[in-house]
Amino acid sequence: MSSHDLVALLEPRAIAVVGASAELTKLNGRPLKHLLDKGYPGRLYPINPKYTTVAGLRCWPSVADLPERVDLAIVVLPARDVVEAVRELGRAGVPFAVVFSSGFGETGDEGRQRERDLLAAAAAGGVRICGPNCLGFVNAFERVTATFSQYAEGPTPAGPVGFVTQSGAFGTAIAALARQRGIGLGYFVNTGNEADISFPEVMRHVIEDPRIRVGAGYVEGLRDGAGLVALAGRAMALGKPLVLTKVGRLGAGSRAAASHTGSLAGEDRVFDAVLRQHGAIRARNEEQMLDAVDVLASCELPAGSGLGIVTMSGGAGVLMADRAEELGLQVPVLAPHTRDALLAVIPDFASPQNPVDITAQFLARPALLTESVRIVLEDSQVHVGIVWLQLMHAAADRIVGLFAQIRDTVSKPFVVVWVAAPESGLRQLRELGIAVLRGGEPAVDAVAGLVAYAGARRRRDAERASSVAQPAAGPAPQPLRLPQARGAVDTATAVALLRGAGVPVLPVCRAADAQAAADAAQALGWPVVLKIESPDILHKTEVDGVRLDLRNAEAVRAAFGELVAAAQEHRPSARLDGVIVQPMAPGGGVEMVVGLQDDPVFGLVVMVGLGGVLVEVLRDVAFRRCPVAPDEAHRMLDELRGVALLGPVRGRAAVDRAALAELIVAVSLFGLAATPCLAELDLNPVRVDAQGAVALDAMMVLR
Amino acid sequence: MSSHDLVALLEPRAIAVVGASAELTKLNGRPLKHLLDKGYPGRLYPINPKYTTVAGLRCWPSVADLPERVDLAIVVLPARDVVEAVRELGRAGVPFAVVFSSGFGETGDEGRQRERDLLAAAAAGGVRICGPNCLGFVNAFERVTATFSQYAEGPTPAGPVGFVTQSGAFGTAIAALARQRGIGLGYFVNTGNEADISFPEVMRHVIEDPRIRVGAGYVEGLRDGAGLVALAGRAMALGKPLVLTKVGRLGAGSRAAASHTGSLAGEDRVFDAVLRQHGAIRARNEEQMLDAVDVLASCELPAGSGLGIVTMSGGAGVLMADRAEELGLQVPVLAPHTRDALLAVIPDFASPQNPVDITAQFLARPALLTESVRIVLEDSQVHVGIVWLQLMHAAADRIVGLFAQIRDTVSKPFVVVWVAAPESGLRQLRELGIAVLRGGEPAVDAVAGLVAYAGARRRRDAERASSVAQPAAGPAPQPLRLPQARGAVDTATAVALLRGAGVPVLPVCRAADAQAAADAAQALGWPVVLKIESPDILHKTEVDGVRLDLRNAEAVRAAFGELVAAAQEHRPSARLDGVIVQPMAPGGGVEMVVGLQDDPVFGLVVMVGLGGVLVEVLRDVAFRRCPVAPDEAHRMLDELRGVALLGPVRGRAAVDRAALAELIVAVSLFGLAATPCLAELDLNPVRVDAQGAVALDAMMVLR
Repeated sequence: MSSHDLVALLEPRAIAVVGASAELTKLNGRPLKHLLDKGYPGRLYPINPKYTTVAGLRCWPSVADLPERVDLAIVVLPARDVVEAVRELGRAGVPFAVVFSSGFGETGDEGRQRERDLLAAAAAGGVRICGPNCLGFVNAFERVTATFSQYAEGPTPAGPVGFVTQSGAFGTAIAALARQRGIGLGYFVNTGNEADISFPEVMRHVIEDPRIRVGAGYVEGLRDGAGLVALAGRAMALGKPLVLTKVGRLGAGSRAAASHTGSLAGEDRVFDAVLRQHGAIRARNEEQMLDAVDVLASCELPAGSGLGIVTMSGGAGVLMADRAEELGLQVPVLAPHTRDALLAVIPDFASPQNPVDITAQFLARPALLTESVRIVLEDSQVHVGIVWLQLMHAAADRIVGLFAQIRDTVSKPFVVVWVAAPESGLRQLRELGIAVLRGGEPAVDAVAGLVAYAGARRRRDAERASSVAQPAAGPAPQPLRLPQARGAVDTATAVALLRGAGVPVLPVCRAADAQAAADAAQALGWPVVLKIESPDILHKTEVDGVRLDLRNAEAVRAAFGELVAAAQEHRPSARLDGVIVQPMAPGGGVEMVVGLQDDPVFGLVVMVGLGGVLVEVLRDVAFRRCPVAPDEAHRMLDELRGVALLGPVRGRAAVDRAALAELIVAVSLFGLAATPCLAELDLNPVRVDAQGAVALDAMMVLR
Repeated sequence: MSSHDLVALLEPRAIAVVGASAELTKLNGRPLKHLLDKGYPGRLYPINPKYTTVAGLRCWPSVADLPERVDLAIVVLPARDVVEAVRELGRAGVPFAVVFSSGFGETGDEGRQRERDLLAAAAAGGVRICGPNCLGFVNAFERVTATFSQYAEGPTPAGPVGFVTQSGAFGTAIAALARQRGIGLGYFVNTGNEADISFPEVMRHVIEDPRIRVGAGYVEGLRDGAGLVALAGRAMALGKPLVLTKVGRLGAGSRAAASHTGSLAGEDRVFDAVLRQHGAIRARNEEQMLDAVDVLASCELPAGSGLGIVTMSGGAGVLMADRAEELGLQVPVLAPHTRDALLAVIPDFASPQNPVDITAQFLARPALLTESVRIVLEDSQVHVGIVWLQLMHAAADRIVGLFAQIRDTVSKPFVVVWVAAPESGLRQLRELGIAVLRGGEPAVDAVAGLVAYAGARRRRDAERASSVAQPAAGPAPQPLRLPQARGAVDTATAVALLRGAGVPVLPVCRAADAQAAADAAQALGWPVVLKIESPDILHKTEVDGVRLDLRNAEAVRAAFGELVAAAQEHRPSARLDGVIVQPMAPGGGVEMVVGLQDDPVFGLVVMVGLGGVLVEVLRDVAFRRCPVAPDEAHRMLDELRGVALLGPVRGRAAVDRAALAELIVAVSLFGLAATPCLAELDLNPVRVDAQGAVALDAMMVLR
């Protein structure tokens, strides 16, 4: 479905309001009132057999009677009447309907059935549905106010931000906050239950609009992972940042989110990772989202992560530097010539370090501010600036003038933090196109989003410029011949499949009897490991099913007997398929876990974590959607809290990270090729040392 | 120094302004202007030989000429004239001076010398100094506006919050933000360089004022750790919460903080731990501090950590529930009778789960709001409530009326979140004494502070009610006979000292020759461990200096020779003191690290962490000021991210946490007894299993 298919929905030339009330303050009267008040330029048709006129417009008994085929019907009927109304819309050839009514999938079984009926009626009649259980939308450019949201009761100025929200009430609040800040929303769309038209589809349409520079989204649950990925890719191609807030990060919250939206949410950490992978920015709440949107809509992209801070409070500088360090930004030590230049303009009691404290004296000596910011931004290690000030109500106009000078002087992006600011100062700075935020920590958070987005853009450009084909764009993966049976795959088959796909796994032989095991050991090389093999035994250590460091044929034959006896003792009913013989891996190095998991939203995702307590207790793992390139695999490793273990620690050399990254890439390509048959893959442990990386065991499950 | 000594500073009956300018808009004119404008009721004496009148007041040539001994001199002279002026104040018997001037310790060597001269002159003359390099203070109750801060340019209404700040500029911004929110500051004090009067001393005075209910502080660097602990203890005794923001949490920030304040900051995590230990609340930035202050000043203390959420947006409820879970609050499942009661009042499409989504329909049916909040708060698992709503500008007065009803109906504390609220609604709710915040996540953060404070109060009450003496209040620790020599203590002495103090450490014997080692092993019991002993070898494994699991005399004698030879090979110049013989500890269990560190601000702090990568790579450790009680030791363990390792994992039984807690308590008491001679103690590892906890090695350093 191309996004251009939504033109008639969001830019309708004629609208019918089905069920319009003559009482314009009621829910079913408000959309018409808003459309009239905001000066909707198209044709409007109230539909209600009870009236002949509504709000001075001729009122029609039904859509069948209209003199033209409208683009959009706003359905403001009770839930029980909606399905029939949509059937009528289908007969009249109306392509889109916004359905406000609640009482569908968000309620009990009856509502879910009604939603299925609605969808069936819509499909049969060729009507596409926004909603039900939604507040509708505002297209501020074309003055289409197809909503009863409180947001439309105030001014709805157009602007470069397109905002799409799955929640009506929270979305309304966010839109109102944007308005308070002076952020113009070109679009405000609430998708509600998403029986048909979903968040990714609407957002794709919105970001295609050349008047939109930034997409902002509020998400509660997502079913269309591929749609989100395609959206993020398109946004990146267009050079338009996407900033998303998604609730439902944890247990109690997710419990409520599941009941609230009816969507099956995948693991939140996967959502988070996929956004990062595809260059979208995640905000943890509404204020952080608007901060990021403000900065992304106002600032050029910085060329790196070096933050220069100029402040009139040393403490505020420290606060921001701390936050920057937490978020992985650099707060570089200034170059000697930068410090010399600063010392020439700032008084002797100020500190020519980053953060630069220019004190409150800049009001008497404006060059303190203008020159300091210019000098700091010119430092080669500084890529983006934050300027912090407070109050100064009496001097607001002068300060705005100074920032106008600064804006015209500097070429790198900067953000102003003005705490307890005069409203006029904020407004004037915004009119100059300067992002101005309310506090130091939020500003650093937003700048971190800007830096992350700029980094994703640079990576994309580099990838496109590179002649090396990307995995995603490269030749189709080799077809895999996966076993037909569902469930656990036997070890030898799994290992063969993986090795065939270029995943380094220690070779194995399956041996049906003791002598075969000894022969296999001889072929593989000494010493070896023996493990019991059975489709009924997933965790071999639980049945005493492993023998390590066997150094000769006699030991192998003895071990075979022991393993079979132990398995028969622990699991008398287990089907035994002999043993697996494998070379004994050298000791040392670091144990990792690498795997594939099937996310209900995004499909197969590749996972890496540090073995042992870090993964078991701290869940210190990183995810990505398959496939990943080597750079992305390195970024996964960098996300691990225990990443330092891969470097030189405890007198041990650094491990071969490149080999580990290649292993992750190979697993992710295997995942791509094994879609949709693979349910789970677990390489545990993967041993990585200074010489390379190899999986010592593999557990594979098909669906 | 009792806090009442500051009465004449903060409530002066007569004030001299030394260096007062007749130009009232200048820095040295503003304090007089503010004092006059705000109606300071005491007597005012401008001092300046250049004038005969200033602002309509008689101006005096010097303090020596004044008709009375003033309580306070506000010194608005250039830095170079301050020392002489303070000498003159001393001769005139003026007990307090506020010194605004910069050019002291915050600048270079010359400034530091000037600050020492100032302090000497003040001490000689009996003048106590607030500042230098400060903005002064406002005592809003007595209308003392001894400041040139911008904060005094607007209204400075009195209120129940006392705010003390080390930073002038940032403090001014915070005070202005408090005013914007309608939080009245009874005191606003900037302590500047703290050459004499420090943050803890001022705050102690402020919280003694019966009109103050909450202390708020902004800290950049602290030298007087004992003063802070005493302050926190007094605040707890008075039942007045302390909320502190401290910057300088990390590297880049700390670098700037050190240069900015000149104070030697101890490790920030120790500061954090000490606040927690003593029931003070730490806020990470200015907005979070004001949120917490607002809630603590308005709400009764909850009896537990169960949070009930009532919202008109399901998504906002999820967001808040997630945040609550992150912060360790409970979002309990509601009791069946609570759900039944809710179902009787909320419409069928709302969710009778916590968070409770009442939708926007409560405007039509007010009972939806009032009854839902009452019912949720009556649930026995719910101890505090958050009610989330948005916009509703047209209905603001009605909503305020509903909350007035709720306030009169419920007995448990609750907080309102009103996003994009009408100003009048916010103001009216505040006038009702209801805390109202701007967003869901900030509200949860503030409620977590309220819950933490309530928990600290309950613990304190329980401790006071209990007949068991607390370590801090109990009998003085046994005097320790520490060695006189500085530096590393030999292992046998260290172990004997620790065992004598009740710290469980495996016994050791030092043996000078091979036969003595074998005899010691026989006495200690087999098997044993041998370790080389030398004051020049701190890390024995680096010199191959450990032999494990020795099972007979022959093995011990052989090991003795090997250890000596290895040490002589690796460290030819090391002085060797024979070997340490120790019983071999059983395997299994969990390895911990317990130690004492000497914090420059707070003195000896006890530290616990999980051994291995968790402490080495993730720095997963918890601190407390010595001594700690067993409950506090358990809370330290609960702070560890890897705490789950102490429970039953990997088929192993849970370890004996109580024994580990007792070991921590014993170490902390040892630290108390060893103050101030002990520089460092490191018990690494401490082995804890289901049977108990014991240190296997001890490294002790004296100063």
